[in-house]
Amino acid sequence: VALDVDPIATADPAALDAADPLAPFRRRFVIPDPDIVYLDGNSLGRPPLRAIERVARVAAEEWAGELIRGWDHWLEAPRRIGDLLGTGLLGANADEVAICDSTTVNFYRLASAALEARPARRIIVTDRANFPTDRYVLEGLARDRDREIAWLEPDPIDGPTVDDVEAVLRQHPGDVALVTLSHVNYRSAAIADLPAITGLAHASGALVLWDLSHSAGSVPVGLAEHGVDLAVGCTYKYLNGGPGAPAYLYIRSDLQAELRNPIQGWFGQADQFEMGQGFRPTAGIGGWLTGTPGVLGLGAAEEGIRVSVEAGIEAIRAKGVALTEYAIALHDAWLAPLGFTLGSPRECGRRGSHVSVRRADARELTRALIDAGVIPDFRAPDSVRLGLSPLTTSFSDVARGIATLARLAGGRPADG
Amino acid sequence: VALDVDPIATADPAALDAADPLAPFRRRFVIPDPDIVYLDGNSLGRPPLRAIERVARVAAEEWAGELIRGWDHWLEAPRRIGDLLGTGLLGANADEVAICDSTTVNFYRLASAALEARPARRIIVTDRANFPTDRYVLEGLARDRDREIAWLEPDPIDGPTVDDVEAVLRQHPGDVALVTLSHVNYRSAAIADLPAITGLAHASGALVLWDLSHSAGSVPVGLAEHGVDLAVGCTYKYLNGGPGAPAYLYIRSDLQAELRNPIQGWFGQADQFEMGQGFRPTAGIGGWLTGTPGVLGLGAAEEGIRVSVEAGIEAIRAKGVALTEYAIALHDAWLAPLGFTLGSPRECGRRGSHVSVRRADARELTRALIDAGVIPDFRAPDSVRLGLSPLTTSFSDVARGIATLARLAGGRPADG
Repeated sequence: VALDVDPIATADPAALDAADPLAPFRRRFVIPDPDIVYLDGNSLGRPPLRAIERVARVAAEEWAGELIRGWDHWLEAPRRIGDLLGTGLLGANADEVAICDSTTVNFYRLASAALEARPARRIIVTDRANFPTDRYVLEGLARDRDREIAWLEPDPIDGPTVDDVEAVLRQHPGDVALVTLSHVNYRSAAIADLPAITGLAHASGALVLWDLSHSAGSVPVGLAEHGVDLAVGCTYKYLNGGPGAPAYLYIRSDLQAELRNPIQGWFGQADQFEMGQGFRPTAGIGGWLTGTPGVLGLGAAEEGIRVSVEAGIEAIRAKGVALTEYAIALHDAWLAPLGFTLGSPRECGRRGSHVSVRRADARELTRALIDAGVIPDFRAPDSVRLGLSPLTTSFSDVARGIATLARLAGGRPADG
Repeated sequence: VALDVDPIATADPAALDAADPLAPFRRRFVIPDPDIVYLDGNSLGRPPLRAIERVARVAAEEWAGELIRGWDHWLEAPRRIGDLLGTGLLGANADEVAICDSTTVNFYRLASAALEARPARRIIVTDRANFPTDRYVLEGLARDRDREIAWLEPDPIDGPTVDDVEAVLRQHPGDVALVTLSHVNYRSAAIADLPAITGLAHASGALVLWDLSHSAGSVPVGLAEHGVDLAVGCTYKYLNGGPGAPAYLYIRSDLQAELRNPIQGWFGQADQFEMGQGFRPTAGIGGWLTGTPGVLGLGAAEEGIRVSVEAGIEAIRAKGVALTEYAIALHDAWLAPLGFTLGSPRECGRRGSHVSVRRADARELTRALIDAGVIPDFRAPDSVRLGLSPLTTSFSDVARGIATLARLAGGRPADG
């Protein structure tokens, strides 16, 4: 071990685990094979035991036993769970978040509504490194609504800065309709400065739409505090809602009636079951629901979200920082000498709860890691992405995962 | 019993059940309380045992055990199950149906794409009695795309006829972009003449979009045979896919690349996990996927659809005809003398698998029926809707349900 290594890299991971106040939360999850080191909870979170029980109960008792009468309580689920997530983890007010559809569909609806609300402005600001579905949706909207995308080309590790956004707004004075970014970048984990960028966008007269998929349940968001207009995200990553779990949308309360949902569905209709003529959205976030929501997925999502609410976002964030600091120390000690570089910000305040490490053979290394029982994911062209999900990832997982990567990458057997 | 009653009304329902070739299929469903007469399988179908087992397995084994690796096979599910449904029950070709999103979202996408494909035509033809979500979506699209809806005002029982459609097409020569109707009306169960109306729409240069929610799994559709352009529907009614189960869309193969999906999501992208720049849809129906699909819901939907495929749509249709004929005979014998009228077509070839019976106090009668263990649903203003789901409804259910309704409506205790 080289002398200039961060002392944390030589810490005993078992001692770090023993001192971890969130360690008991791991026991709330189903972990059938404890020998697997799972470092992809930022892509698909592990199942809470209560989610698995809930799904079985929804199917075998509610669907089978209540039959159509289940809708007496299922109807409320998108708003009830939205409030649990919004007030419990996102810093929204009640009746500003609903669980519904996919992130893609919600992003389309909110971006479309924002453009309609700024009809004279031609520019959409986003980031070349934004998550693909956001970019693809915006490309379609730009063509259909006759707008242009002003692409930010930020530093691939640090992501778009306040200066980047300020510069593009200055280039298009009075012409930016929408600024939309990911709060935490899916690849580098860079945290965008949500308060400052939201303020800048508002000062220019634009609306702002944040994709929270990689921040919800891992870092505090403060939607109400920072006056955010619009947000979307998924519940299957740090929120542990299950594969393809339903997504959510947030609309600041004063915008809910001002903006218009392009997909006017019967679940948004006042007096839904009168089935009358003419769409009249119900008041509040419920007016933004569209079609019939998937009840099995809602049940799992509620249990997933609830675990994070019970742990508390501040405690989750503190552990996320500690896990990623530890991972970076081990990268520096074990991987950097093998030609890896860090693909995530070093400053913990600028970094979410995953860490990317880069080397040209990342694709092959990821395959070899999975064969060896360590599961991260690969992001083209050269990143192994290590997701450190605070409720289920231990410091021992981090040490074993990175030691295995070092061994597979040609290093000497490490001590993890 | 009056002398002019249809002889079927005096048949022994137990004998009808004994002669029913589909009766054994009822044992494939979980029916926890056999004393409940469930006449709402056209709104939410009962769970197949295999669907409940599948959901539990997806959660406890696939999600928990495979974790992110589950996507190796989950990715194919929307197309695999789409083919099972499309080729097995809808008469589509392979790679023309995908399971995804909600009926509302799919209807929006296909209607929007159809309007874009007919830019010079201003008129959308639909039916005032169409299902609400279809009407609400069209109202939004008409406003956003600067089109007009030509509303058919058909007979409320018989639904839109070929003559109705021909008349409206003649009123707007060369100006109709889209004709969209429900194949089976959600209230009266009237079957629209899909082959003739599709042919008329095509002759006028319009595209046609069918909502199959109340026909899929209850009557044959023949999408390929009749050259249908576009269709959507849900899987939670006769297809027994579970509450809020994912919906589907059908796009005739030659239109899949010609039309454009307004919601360009990452699940439709070629080389999805390269996450590159620029949306390029993958070939085939997969290019019409949008966001991440809910895996729990897909599993249940697959098992639900599979039961109907195994029973065969012709056998299902034959039983649906027999059940509704029996229900109408009992209506005539027991309900008509109490002031009820029939809200469904009498001709079985013009009627799907539910029957509406009408009286002014239908809302109160429906509540009383549910309290008495008979579950139909109410449709404003005056219909009790009796869903007769061929795989799970017995002739004894029909007799008991209608006898109970007659008793609650003030008749003498019937013999059912």
